[in-house]
Amino acid sequence: MNFDEAEVIAALARIFGTSGRGVEIGIGDDAAVVKTSERTAITTDVAVEGTHFNTAWSSAFDIGRKITAANLADVYAMGGSPRYLVAAVTLTGQESMEWIEELAEGIAHEASGCGAYVVGGDLAKGPCVSIAITAIGQVDAAITRTGAQIGDSIYISSLPGWSAAGLAIIDKDLEGDIALHAVSEFSAPTVDYAAAVQFSNGKATSMCDISDALIIQANQVAQASGVHFAISQELIRSNAEFVTLSELAESVGEDVWQWILAGGEDHVFLATGKDLGGFCIGEVQQGAGVSGVEMKKAPDTWRHFQ
Amino acid sequence: MNFDEAEVIAALARIFGTSGRGVEIGIGDDAAVVKTSERTAITTDVAVEGTHFNTAWSSAFDIGRKITAANLADVYAMGGSPRYLVAAVTLTGQESMEWIEELAEGIAHEASGCGAYVVGGDLAKGPCVSIAITAIGQVDAAITRTGAQIGDSIYISSLPGWSAAGLAIIDKDLEGDIALHAVSEFSAPTVDYAAAVQFSNGKATSMCDISDALIIQANQVAQASGVHFAISQELIRSNAEFVTLSELAESVGEDVWQWILAGGEDHVFLATGKDLGGFCIGEVQQGAGVSGVEMKKAPDTWRHFQ
Repeated sequence: MNFDEAEVIAALARIFGTSGRGVEIGIGDDAAVVKTSERTAITTDVAVEGTHFNTAWSSAFDIGRKITAANLADVYAMGGSPRYLVAAVTLTGQESMEWIEELAEGIAHEASGCGAYVVGGDLAKGPCVSIAITAIGQVDAAITRTGAQIGDSIYISSLPGWSAAGLAIIDKDLEGDIALHAVSEFSAPTVDYAAAVQFSNGKATSMCDISDALIIQANQVAQASGVHFAISQELIRSNAEFVTLSELAESVGEDVWQWILAGGEDHVFLATGKDLGGFCIGEVQQGAGVSGVEMKKAPDTWRHFQ
Repeated sequence: MNFDEAEVIAALARIFGTSGRGVEIGIGDDAAVVKTSERTAITTDVAVEGTHFNTAWSSAFDIGRKITAANLADVYAMGGSPRYLVAAVTLTGQESMEWIEELAEGIAHEASGCGAYVVGGDLAKGPCVSIAITAIGQVDAAITRTGAQIGDSIYISSLPGWSAAGLAIIDKDLEGDIALHAVSEFSAPTVDYAAAVQFSNGKATSMCDISDALIIQANQVAQASGVHFAISQELIRSNAEFVTLSELAESVGEDVWQWILAGGEDHVFLATGKDLGGFCIGEVQQGAGVSGVEMKKAPDTWRHFQ
């Protein structure tokens, strides 16, 4: 072991603190006790070394940010505001204290940007690093996947595909700001949480976050709402970032549509409604499924069973 | 892969259901949405194959029960009532559908006995099986570790040590009901949740669950409350189960006090107060630390940073 467990716990308690708004009892007892309102969103996401991240590619700070972002985005995607997190972390025992502290700082950084606090957790020893985070948040009116209405426009908060682009080029040593941006988005995406709030305030009829792939989540919302999603590749092409992403794809011989439609892990928000802001990519119509998008290779199946 | 991910998710949705009390939106969206009251307890615990369980020793049902019990006990130990769980499960891909279903059924079984429901989760692939559960529950008046008062009696809900006994004898092929009971308690402890409710109703001044070791948790409560725990080994000896556990220890050449004081993972509740019921093991006095207990070997450090 490169660290003492008591030392790790003391460091985590220091980094996470317990002074957050609404935290009545923080780290140090059997469970945290927090103030809640009438309706609460709960979500959990786990990141496993070798599957979701690679310690050789990503800093501990980014690994912490990324898994935290996945959880926070899920709360926002329900129309909620994240408040509290708990983290169950498995370590191999070979990590340095610095690495562990950076991981905790990444988690705390991403959470505090959303006004959320880590209120507890668990540490275990195992064969690889794994971080399971649970976020709970306040929800006044839940926005589900079932409410898309015929005639609604379909919006995304930004162009997805950057995380997939980053994964595709991470071992290619490309230079330039665009390549660096993609790798950075893969290591820890910049999630536009404010866009989810804007979609909520605009009375979105349905919302979700694109954690698996645009095509998968669009299909899920269309199915849950009993409608058809007519997506327009022309509209997607008109996004300000499309040319940049296309050029990056071309430079490494990849298909940009594969990144955009099947990429996943960007945590871009997908919503339906009227005049929501964001970027319009199509229209909700009568029928079923998704049309207007063509892909050479279907994305992997989704794994989230929230 | 021995299973199809979509098939697993369908099975989990079926086993966990979404019809629980207070569940507004269950499995199938970005996050679950549940009814909550003003004050909520949150706790998380992870179990890792090779560290906390061994698939050769324990059934999937028991593995699911055990990690769920650890979470439920933490909510009860705060004076709360568990309501909702989420589970982040890592699988290797070599598990059978039957094994996965049994794991889910073990989780659902232990939870439903407490009136709690699994409302969501995440599935990931990794090098070993790992199950991180988060429980949230309703708390009216939190019972912390800080409230033990000089003159209080110290109570436990039952004799700890059975889980440690089970671990010590699991590979020894002992026969008889006592040995079977110990192994069964190691595989998945029978937690007396009702005792925690009784301690709460009796206005316990402090409470915790003995997840790590009686000696560790007693020290933690004494320190948090700024008092001394005078534990009596004579009182512990008078517990109805002491003779049975001692005989089992003797038969395998182990020290029964090591099991009782340093064992852990029984999730026995430790509380202070007056006339709480349960089993009295000592008195809260002025001072610091714990006296009256002697051990040959100190237990491992604790790992829970709630």
